[in-house]
Amino acid sequence: MRTTSQPRSIQVHASDNVAIVVNEGGLPAGTRLDSGLVLRDGIPEAHKVALTMIPAGAPVIRYGVTIGYARTEIPIGSWVHEGLLALPEAPALDELPTQEGVRTQSAPLEGFTFEGYVNDDGTVGTKNILGISTTVQCVSATVEYAVKRIKAELLPKYPNVHDVIAIAHLYGCGVAIDAPGSEIPIRTLRNLSLNPNLGGAPMVVSLGCEKLQPAQMLPSSTLPILSSQPYVVRLQDDAHRSFGDMVQAIMHMAEQRLVQLNARRRQVRPASDLVVGLQCGGSDAFSGVTANPAVGYAADLLVRAGATVMFSEVTEVRDAIHLLTARAATPQVAKDLIREMAWYDRYLERGSVDRSANPTPGNKSGGLANIVEKALGSIAKAGTSSISGVFGPGERINCKGLVFAATPASDFVCGTLQLAASMNMHVFTTGRGTPYGLAMAPVIKVSSRTALAERWSDLIDIDAGTIATGEASIPQVGEAIFHYILDVASGRKKTCADYWGLHNEFALFNPAPIT
Amino acid sequence: MRTTSQPRSIQVHASDNVAIVVNEGGLPAGTRLDSGLVLRDGIPEAHKVALTMIPAGAPVIRYGVTIGYARTEIPIGSWVHEGLLALPEAPALDELPTQEGVRTQSAPLEGFTFEGYVNDDGTVGTKNILGISTTVQCVSATVEYAVKRIKAELLPKYPNVHDVIAIAHLYGCGVAIDAPGSEIPIRTLRNLSLNPNLGGAPMVVSLGCEKLQPAQMLPSSTLPILSSQPYVVRLQDDAHRSFGDMVQAIMHMAEQRLVQLNARRRQVRPASDLVVGLQCGGSDAFSGVTANPAVGYAADLLVRAGATVMFSEVTEVRDAIHLLTARAATPQVAKDLIREMAWYDRYLERGSVDRSANPTPGNKSGGLANIVEKALGSIAKAGTSSISGVFGPGERINCKGLVFAATPASDFVCGTLQLAASMNMHVFTTGRGTPYGLAMAPVIKVSSRTALAERWSDLIDIDAGTIATGEASIPQVGEAIFHYILDVASGRKKTCADYWGLHNEFALFNPAPIT
Repeated sequence: MRTTSQPRSIQVHASDNVAIVVNEGGLPAGTRLDSGLVLRDGIPEAHKVALTMIPAGAPVIRYGVTIGYARTEIPIGSWVHEGLLALPEAPALDELPTQEGVRTQSAPLEGFTFEGYVNDDGTVGTKNILGISTTVQCVSATVEYAVKRIKAELLPKYPNVHDVIAIAHLYGCGVAIDAPGSEIPIRTLRNLSLNPNLGGAPMVVSLGCEKLQPAQMLPSSTLPILSSQPYVVRLQDDAHRSFGDMVQAIMHMAEQRLVQLNARRRQVRPASDLVVGLQCGGSDAFSGVTANPAVGYAADLLVRAGATVMFSEVTEVRDAIHLLTARAATPQVAKDLIREMAWYDRYLERGSVDRSANPTPGNKSGGLANIVEKALGSIAKAGTSSISGVFGPGERINCKGLVFAATPASDFVCGTLQLAASMNMHVFTTGRGTPYGLAMAPVIKVSSRTALAERWSDLIDIDAGTIATGEASIPQVGEAIFHYILDVASGRKKTCADYWGLHNEFALFNPAPIT
Repeated sequence: MRTTSQPRSIQVHASDNVAIVVNEGGLPAGTRLDSGLVLRDGIPEAHKVALTMIPAGAPVIRYGVTIGYARTEIPIGSWVHEGLLALPEAPALDELPTQEGVRTQSAPLEGFTFEGYVNDDGTVGTKNILGISTTVQCVSATVEYAVKRIKAELLPKYPNVHDVIAIAHLYGCGVAIDAPGSEIPIRTLRNLSLNPNLGGAPMVVSLGCEKLQPAQMLPSSTLPILSSQPYVVRLQDDAHRSFGDMVQAIMHMAEQRLVQLNARRRQVRPASDLVVGLQCGGSDAFSGVTANPAVGYAADLLVRAGATVMFSEVTEVRDAIHLLTARAATPQVAKDLIREMAWYDRYLERGSVDRSANPTPGNKSGGLANIVEKALGSIAKAGTSSISGVFGPGERINCKGLVFAATPASDFVCGTLQLAASMNMHVFTTGRGTPYGLAMAPVIKVSSRTALAERWSDLIDIDAGTIATGEASIPQVGEAIFHYILDVASGRKKTCADYWGLHNEFALFNPAPIT
């Protein structure tokens, strides 16, 4: 039963001196909450109310953590908006708890499986896709042209293959190929080709004169299969006597791959073969109390089942880094976390960017006062497991458990880097709403508010807003997400993004200049 | 008659101590040239032969300019390859000739016209396209979905409209919207919406919570028409109760635009309404002696006819900047040129990039030893006119004559910025060959070698390789390019790229970090 007509608020942690107003449309001044507190101001939906008088300079506490300091005295019942909060300093990277030692692991969860496509390299796909990699943007229009024809003329003959996608991008030439940071886009492109959902037999279209040569992007030593069969079509090769020839060459190699992919069948695999990437976008103040904790609950279940769960978004965890280093499984993991934060601090500094640039205006009007509050909500997605590994942007993950893959927070840059990290399932939480989708892996979208899930019923897969209205608990929604992941990974259920074919372009992270 | 079977070489300037071997496949050691010179080494096609003994440390001269210094003594008849040349210092920006005063203009060329679409703001389109702008990548998959339906369901009803394109990009959120340099991608997006080929009545699809808001990207004050009619569809608006609703809203606004665009007809306009962008990509050593000088000749004709001709690619002109400042129409233009070079020097320095990163390996194997030689060939495209204006990346051009629009050399970043600068016709020269194309403006591709034009007969529009074989002169090919531009601009001829629909994605230049 829905209870949104009653005044309703959520206090996350017992020590918090603010709570979130849950009611759609907010609550007017004078409203009396269950606790007896009377609102001094009108408070918008998802925004914070002061549960006590907060003296000037005193900490404002949410999630049990200081999210800012009161610029002036804040009377009880006031709207604690962005303008009232002074931003705390980011935790200094040289004073973090890094020597906590090995944490105890939760009890393993046995018997959960899904049906996936087993690759030669031991990875498992949740889809069976032909991916056509490109070394440089010069070839992308040609590859798009070929892909259109492959989809129309060849794909119908190979019904076990789900899709054909061009891994198009803006890199490869007009860039300083040896500049500091260039290793990031290059390894990203290499590892995108190796994503488990692409079947383990990549093909590459190259121009010929570009800076990023196929041998640098995807050397044949990467996979045994590549040394035994051709995998590069080079448009400038003399063999191609016309544009039509080039397209034919791409289609010919593509059809060889389609034959291989089409012979594959789903097999029952343990849940431990999942590599689930977590992300949020268009967040609001509910994200941190509904969708993200529910996903965090599912993440804990996945980790207990032996899977790999990846969280990311450096700029959104930076201000909560002290809570993450304390969860490092080993001292090295803590050091690696700090290394990635420090790299990003320098990267932003070089561009004269200050961290108040995040959150977005939409985040703020959604009730997130600053990056600290956003960070605390963001890391709720990562559940409570210890962190077993840290990977740089575009690196491929090679361990199980909860891992941190360092990426920007930009939704599509993060998604692209998570795909390179070998993600085969994606869970995306949103409060404001975004029609996000990726071609290479299924994206389950979880809404933080029921109003959004109802309005966008054909875009949101799971509604975690029921946690705010009291209809469901965090464990209930978390369990539902866990089982939904297994269903989608097995092809038994289809995400909204896949239903509509909403697949955003890849967005490479290139920290180096273009030339 | 073809004469490629004879040994053939080209010396560009009387003071040059190297010449270029023209024969396909190069020439073997021992070959005697017309001049009597005997080759000491085998010399690949488009590579340089020493016309005299060049002592160690002496300048190697091409185009009458020092392109490097001999690392060791180079005997007469030797192959002057990259390894023999030490790179000269880039011209210091504080010692350039900047006070040359107003140059004499060439005689005006009267009576040349084309048939274009006149816009309310006085610009003229060579195509009649519906462009759908986006504020942020979050909406791009939705817009692509809508564009597919618009093309299938609406466009056939409006036969005078040539195309519908989504101006999709990776910017708008996950970026520091106020960082130094952020003005570049923002004004680029604004000015892309205002490209003459889009009919002067833009529409914008926004998510709602993104950092780059429609009012910042394209304020209604930009065009009178925008204050009198709605031009933004915002996906997060409460009015949209589903994904289907969003798509309907985009299609509804698109159809209103299609009705307006469809009522337009081509009108006879003076050639002075053309804004022709010049670019080269996949260059070889022939580019600077065939295709680029021929385009330069056409550029001079266009300037004399009153048109705007734009050249770009900072990193490819940087090493010839002293030749450009000397051609500045006013001292201010020279200062502006230096300003743009200095900005780029700092940008590359911040990323620890040295200028030897350009040329590409393909350029080098095509015979271009270093960036100096490439720059000299590159600026040949700009002809001999004085330079009347300089524009920063993404700025809109507001003057006639030969102008420099500062951009990176990356083909698609440059093309995107030239479109933002208001380019309505594009000429692209290539030696190695690239299947380049843009959706927003016709691209005429000119090859530097006949072998490429023959092999890629369905991709190359004009062969300038006939200059090397002696079949045609630079003025002859230049005139042909000039007339081809007028024909394509009028819709009488179609480029190869448009025939195949080869349209690369937009590539924004964002010098700031992503977050």
